[in-house]
Amino acid sequence: MVRIAVDLMGGDNAPKEIEKGVLQAVEADDSLEILLYGLEGSYSGNHPRVTFITVTQKIESDDDPVRSVRRKKDSSLVRACKAVKDKEADACVSAGNTGALMSAGLFVVGRIKGIERPAIGTLLPTTGGERNGMMLLDMGANVDNKPQHLHQFAVMADLYMRENEKRSNPRIGLVNNGSEDNKGSELTKETFKLLKESDLNFTGNFETRDILSGDVDIAVTDGFTGNIILKTIEGTAKALMGEVKHAFLKNAKNKLAALILKRDVQSVRELLDYRQYGGAPLLGLDGNVLKAHGSSDAEAIVSAIRQAKKMAESDAIVKIKEKVGNE
Amino acid sequence: MVRIAVDLMGGDNAPKEIEKGVLQAVEADDSLEILLYGLEGSYSGNHPRVTFITVTQKIESDDDPVRSVRRKKDSSLVRACKAVKDKEADACVSAGNTGALMSAGLFVVGRIKGIERPAIGTLLPTTGGERNGMMLLDMGANVDNKPQHLHQFAVMADLYMRENEKRSNPRIGLVNNGSEDNKGSELTKETFKLLKESDLNFTGNFETRDILSGDVDIAVTDGFTGNIILKTIEGTAKALMGEVKHAFLKNAKNKLAALILKRDVQSVRELLDYRQYGGAPLLGLDGNVLKAHGSSDAEAIVSAIRQAKKMAESDAIVKIKEKVGNE
Repeated sequence: MVRIAVDLMGGDNAPKEIEKGVLQAVEADDSLEILLYGLEGSYSGNHPRVTFITVTQKIESDDDPVRSVRRKKDSSLVRACKAVKDKEADACVSAGNTGALMSAGLFVVGRIKGIERPAIGTLLPTTGGERNGMMLLDMGANVDNKPQHLHQFAVMADLYMRENEKRSNPRIGLVNNGSEDNKGSELTKETFKLLKESDLNFTGNFETRDILSGDVDIAVTDGFTGNIILKTIEGTAKALMGEVKHAFLKNAKNKLAALILKRDVQSVRELLDYRQYGGAPLLGLDGNVLKAHGSSDAEAIVSAIRQAKKMAESDAIVKIKEKVGNE
Repeated sequence: MVRIAVDLMGGDNAPKEIEKGVLQAVEADDSLEILLYGLEGSYSGNHPRVTFITVTQKIESDDDPVRSVRRKKDSSLVRACKAVKDKEADACVSAGNTGALMSAGLFVVGRIKGIERPAIGTLLPTTGGERNGMMLLDMGANVDNKPQHLHQFAVMADLYMRENEKRSNPRIGLVNNGSEDNKGSELTKETFKLLKESDLNFTGNFETRDILSGDVDIAVTDGFTGNIILKTIEGTAKALMGEVKHAFLKNAKNKLAALILKRDVQSVRELLDYRQYGGAPLLGLDGNVLKAHGSSDAEAIVSAIRQAKKMAESDAIVKIKEKVGNE
């Protein structure tokens, strides 16, 4: 049995879609138990492997991360993290306020000794290459990073991709504004040196015009840039697929032709659908904490819970502790 | 008559496509004269309004920007900039090494007094809103910017969009990792204050998930982030349109349907086609210098020359001088 704590109140579609996702997840997996934290009356389900725990507070999406975690100790988000800390749950999942989840991760679950800054690692789809998907980190837990932070991000992502995604010898690229070794900002130039000297499989600078190409398994960047990259992918995809749809509906002839293509073009849209890609692990914490997308629906919650279980069963954290402890 | 100096040797498709573009541009516009700088034998055309000037050097795409401009004084890129400095040309266009063009802009053409860092402004398409297109800057001339640099970028882009694109009261957004006022890195937080206090039409933080939405006329960011944004748009569009094509060719039925939709979907592809959008002005120089995309073909060169002429006929530089001089 793997026990996952879930924040029922977090995300744009909470609590309805979270509940739906939780029930689908336990239905699909007999070895799964859920501790579900929510306000009174927010859970209407009934399942022997879902334990509903009533809380009295809720963290809003625009709450100040640090302050809300300190003040709302009985919120669903903080209680789900507390369950991990107290070993009542093997992992937790929240689609709520990202900053608050990171704060709860730091203050409630705690940091792995030696890790300066935990990071959020997002799994992105890739269209080329033999290996499907890559990890981009940090996607926004940090701003104003230092080179040693980025080096630790690479170490953590390397072990995560080995342990959780069974990726052998992951290729690590440094997001930069040019492919040549001497390119970049002060931050990326210094980070380049650290990665070059490390025992990681560092493949050099990585330009985001190849972001979905599958040329690397891990792309390392500071939290500001990572956040901008994710949102730029989202914005570009939204605009382009909107225009494709527009072209399909332009006239009767197009509409007819589009009917035939609909399903296959739909799968292009799904390529960049966050719902398929589970949650984003908060790496560097001494416990398994996963962030689900803020717009998560039931399907996204099912993926995130599945990924949380995988992480709980893997040795990622143990390996990170070993490696960082030895440095 | 407007006279434009063109670097025949710059870009992936030089000199063939540059020559073709130059000849198409003069054919299409009777009031246009071109000074064309190239190595001996590189020009095979013959047009009364194209003057070919032989140079003995060429700057390569991987040359060190500053050193190559200092050492290769008789290169086509440096000579085209020199023509602007000497008032032999009203503007110049190069598809060559971006860093070298900026260096030549600084060392040969010169900076406007009071401007700390010139910036490259890229015009991006937009899919929504009433106004078509926006400017993103800096797209990569600078790394490690300071808040006052970003403030000046906003001032320059504002005047450029007013004078060249006839955009009234341009809406200016600050690229940031969240929409709330207090979000961001040290750089963006400080810049936010400067823009808020300015007389610009500052609409607040701008998230790149709206990058192609047309919600702003100008998006301001540091050169590192701007470069990453541009390449992320390029990479996402390439991957998605590749997948759409893949879906279209999947089987005989799809191929048939795709034939009907081909032209309209092609126009989606063209939406993000840099060739339609002319050159990127180097703002902050005391002369009109435009960077054409490195992969420019003839069509892209035609657009860039057209834009260079527009800039030469506008008062953008005069207005920037006035405004910066008064601050």
